[in-house]
Amino acid sequence: MQNKESHHKNGMLGWLKHYQRAALVGDINAGAVVALLLIPQGIAYALVAGLPPVTGLYASVLPPLAYALLGSSMVQSVGAQAITALMIGTTLATLAPHGSTLSLILASQMALIAGATLLLCGLLRLGFLASFLSRPVMSGFTTGSAIVIAGEQVKPLLGGSLNSMHVPGMAIGLGALLALWLAKQYLTGLLVRLGLVQSWAETLSKLAPAFILLLATVLVSVLDLHRAGVSVVGEVPSGFPSLSFAASSSHWGVLVKPSMLLAFVIFLFSQSSAQALAQRRNERINADHELLGLGAANLMSALSGSFPVTGSISRSAVNFTAGANTPLASIISACFLGLVLLAPTTWLALLPIPVLAATIILAVLGMVDLPAFREAWRYDRGDAAAMLTAAGGVLVLGVEEGVILGVALSLATLIWRASRPHMAVLGRIPGTEHFRNVRRHEVETLPGVLMLRIDADLFFGNADVIVGHIEHLLDGREHQTVPIRHILLVMSAVNLIDTTALHALKELNQNLKKRGITLHLSEIKGPVMDHLQRSDFIERLNDGQIFLSTAQAYDFLAKNERIF
Amino acid sequence: MQNKESHHKNGMLGWLKHYQRAALVGDINAGAVVALLLIPQGIAYALVAGLPPVTGLYASVLPPLAYALLGSSMVQSVGAQAITALMIGTTLATLAPHGSTLSLILASQMALIAGATLLLCGLLRLGFLASFLSRPVMSGFTTGSAIVIAGEQVKPLLGGSLNSMHVPGMAIGLGALLALWLAKQYLTGLLVRLGLVQSWAETLSKLAPAFILLLATVLVSVLDLHRAGVSVVGEVPSGFPSLSFAASSSHWGVLVKPSMLLAFVIFLFSQSSAQALAQRRNERINADHELLGLGAANLMSALSGSFPVTGSISRSAVNFTAGANTPLASIISACFLGLVLLAPTTWLALLPIPVLAATIILAVLGMVDLPAFREAWRYDRGDAAAMLTAAGGVLVLGVEEGVILGVALSLATLIWRASRPHMAVLGRIPGTEHFRNVRRHEVETLPGVLMLRIDADLFFGNADVIVGHIEHLLDGREHQTVPIRHILLVMSAVNLIDTTALHALKELNQNLKKRGITLHLSEIKGPVMDHLQRSDFIERLNDGQIFLSTAQAYDFLAKNERIF
Repeated sequence: MQNKESHHKNGMLGWLKHYQRAALVGDINAGAVVALLLIPQGIAYALVAGLPPVTGLYASVLPPLAYALLGSSMVQSVGAQAITALMIGTTLATLAPHGSTLSLILASQMALIAGATLLLCGLLRLGFLASFLSRPVMSGFTTGSAIVIAGEQVKPLLGGSLNSMHVPGMAIGLGALLALWLAKQYLTGLLVRLGLVQSWAETLSKLAPAFILLLATVLVSVLDLHRAGVSVVGEVPSGFPSLSFAASSSHWGVLVKPSMLLAFVIFLFSQSSAQALAQRRNERINADHELLGLGAANLMSALSGSFPVTGSISRSAVNFTAGANTPLASIISACFLGLVLLAPTTWLALLPIPVLAATIILAVLGMVDLPAFREAWRYDRGDAAAMLTAAGGVLVLGVEEGVILGVALSLATLIWRASRPHMAVLGRIPGTEHFRNVRRHEVETLPGVLMLRIDADLFFGNADVIVGHIEHLLDGREHQTVPIRHILLVMSAVNLIDTTALHALKELNQNLKKRGITLHLSEIKGPVMDHLQRSDFIERLNDGQIFLSTAQAYDFLAKNERIF
Repeated sequence: MQNKESHHKNGMLGWLKHYQRAALVGDINAGAVVALLLIPQGIAYALVAGLPPVTGLYASVLPPLAYALLGSSMVQSVGAQAITALMIGTTLATLAPHGSTLSLILASQMALIAGATLLLCGLLRLGFLASFLSRPVMSGFTTGSAIVIAGEQVKPLLGGSLNSMHVPGMAIGLGALLALWLAKQYLTGLLVRLGLVQSWAETLSKLAPAFILLLATVLVSVLDLHRAGVSVVGEVPSGFPSLSFAASSSHWGVLVKPSMLLAFVIFLFSQSSAQALAQRRNERINADHELLGLGAANLMSALSGSFPVTGSISRSAVNFTAGANTPLASIISACFLGLVLLAPTTWLALLPIPVLAATIILAVLGMVDLPAFREAWRYDRGDAAAMLTAAGGVLVLGVEEGVILGVALSLATLIWRASRPHMAVLGRIPGTEHFRNVRRHEVETLPGVLMLRIDADLFFGNADVIVGHIEHLLDGREHQTVPIRHILLVMSAVNLIDTTALHALKELNQNLKKRGITLHLSEIKGPVMDHLQRSDFIERLNDGQIFLSTAQAYDFLAKNERIF
């Protein structure tokens, strides 16, 4: 436990200094499993992004090494990911022909811009922006994107266009889909009943797509199906990715905005993957380090002829289940993939596209988050509506617009929540020094005195609302027999008063003075009081007093009122 | 007072139903004063926006009537305003020649888009977005824009370009600048010493620009200075604005973004003007009605051949000081301006541009908010930095970029603040039922029990941070002799738990369970508890309990711990 915590304290590669031999078996094991997973995933998501298949393999060689150097998660698997692949594909679709050299150049440029953005955000310590999007908005966005991806794969699954279906292609595609579905539903249970331990059974079932794809490739090869018209991946150049970077100088301008949006999405998905698994491993994630790791990984991707990479929650979960203890697992899987690239790659050319489409469809349909929707619907209709809106935004407006809509939704919620601070009019519980909400407790109040507890920090987002609420309360009391002459603000829950709120309080004090009402404060916390003393607010209170406790204020005002 | 409050309850034109004859004198008075102010201001700001001078007068005729119908403020003066004029001018500069018919068509289109946006936001009740920008960011933006406007007016002030200064023009411009400055500094005091009441003295000094301009026009006319090369406004067509709308269909696309930004700025400035004056008049502003009023005013502006209009804080303040009680004052000033337009307007043609430039420079330099900066600097360096950044953004990047930068700054602050909720580890003050922060009070704690009060609503902006903080606290206690076995979350300050936070709490509970730690809760508020019961969170607590009070929890856990 101590080691795990100290990884971050020791900074980069902290895990390496404290590496324990006991971790090695798990890391090698997970590295091998994830490498097996990465071959079909890399090629499939390269196709989703509209790029040459080999780039998906490149994405899993050098970028994970860069992440291992700077990243924060012990088990994050960085590489191609479905939703970012869709975003890349959407951006490239209008700019370059599918699978062309230009499309690859542009994808590398996107990786460069996204990587630089992520790195810069990490250096500026903007990791706190991870709490930008609410969970329902993220689920909605994921669900919408998953449906778009699945829809796009229907044509390749059926071996061509809907008009010109290709029967052998369709047969192999639908067959694979059925096999994948059966494996997903029953394989783990079957393997457990055959005597495997749960974690092994789970890991092996995750490899079902790889085995089915291998089987299908053998089938294609033996039956010469590619000559019969079943579409296959085609030549995958062997050899290590070369380190170089080419850019289309006329495209920088048009790529900046989508690449920065992409960086944002990469960070959100990777951070939520890192965090979910860190919790299971009882570790802490540093969001700023995560930004740095993702930035380095994407720059490395740009330099090694690939496209923007993301930490994938599903693949990272397999990595974790298969026994990964440290980023060494990712390094090992990168080495495996390097070896695959160095070995003859002719067999990859025969991977049947309908089967790849089947694996994509089944993978992304697993992302459709109906349980989250049902939960949100039962728990909070507003959150359920936000989820539907984000999903609808992706489906109707497009994936980029879906992100922007999601951000706008989340921000509007944030501002709306900030602008509705909780406030309670207080009274004293008879015979005690306790003060409680008059609406919920049997309490006594002083005529002519309004005691109000503000349950929020005072800042620009709520300053006007709070002042407005106080004035509204006064309006409501204007025709009572004893008019309000004193207002006491109980500041026990206030940890901050910013410049905007300070100004609002000053204005309030001035307006109250004109109406013959004195403003008092109680229970101001130490740091807040220190802060207030840097302004002239307290001296401007005039007759108004600062009380240490609300009980003191109550006693003082009780005596004071009796005098009049 | 009751009448004032009921204006809103009765909706539109509520003020008219309850109109009291006593208010009439003030309204007529203010209407006349503001009309006198509007003639030079309208023409000057039309020139800032790069539009024909008469459009500035049109802006003050029909749009204020529309505002009076739907708006929320009793004393708001809607019409041309310096900063929005600058924004319009910046947008039009690249699209159409200065003062051309096309520029006017585009300005009307901007008014249409901005008006529709404002109206829509009002219908969607998005008035709460007014708390979007902090006061320092608003001041910074205003200051930066004021400097830009003043800088742009130096050339017309000097009667031409810096290279080819025109001596008579320069003389009249600088002379007017001096006279205006003297009037601003000393006129009120002088008039008070001459026996006028303060409010009248203030009002008359505000009219100094109009009198100086009139004087200069007479001078131009008598000395034929316009023939000697002093630039003048030129022909101002007489007659009422005709109701019609022309659009350049090819420009819609390029106008949408700047017009929506403009709508945002119009709302922010108008709302802060309405609010400041409502506070002085002890009235309440409804931000949604303000949106509707501004939307209607801008649509009317688009239909009457003018440009986007704004509620101006300085002019509204004059309106208020001159005695305005209701929107009737604005209606009267609109009628005055209508009469000016129907009368011969040949005299307007001789308004000398250097003097107009002088009035603009002096007006906008009054917006440079150095006191606000000094105050922010002393009180909160972060706020001072935000103000400088917003001002610098306008000066370096441009006015549109300045708004966007300001919004980004405010939002980042909002998210940052939301992501740092206050939490306190609690202990019991011996012999009492009070629980306080262990850091600040002498309290007793139970070994093996961690009591934590969360001083914020739980939502997506802080859920992960709160869970992370709890885990961090646990990590810090791991090597103590008595490990933590119970965590009690004191929920007395929590008024909301959203779906994201609910999920985070569930995950926390599950992880704690694995570590042999039981999660308990106390002091959950009624509405929060009702909400939680719609989920399975409480049943999943297992051994964890819900306590009504923290004291009950303490006693229970004290007994419980003794058993082990």
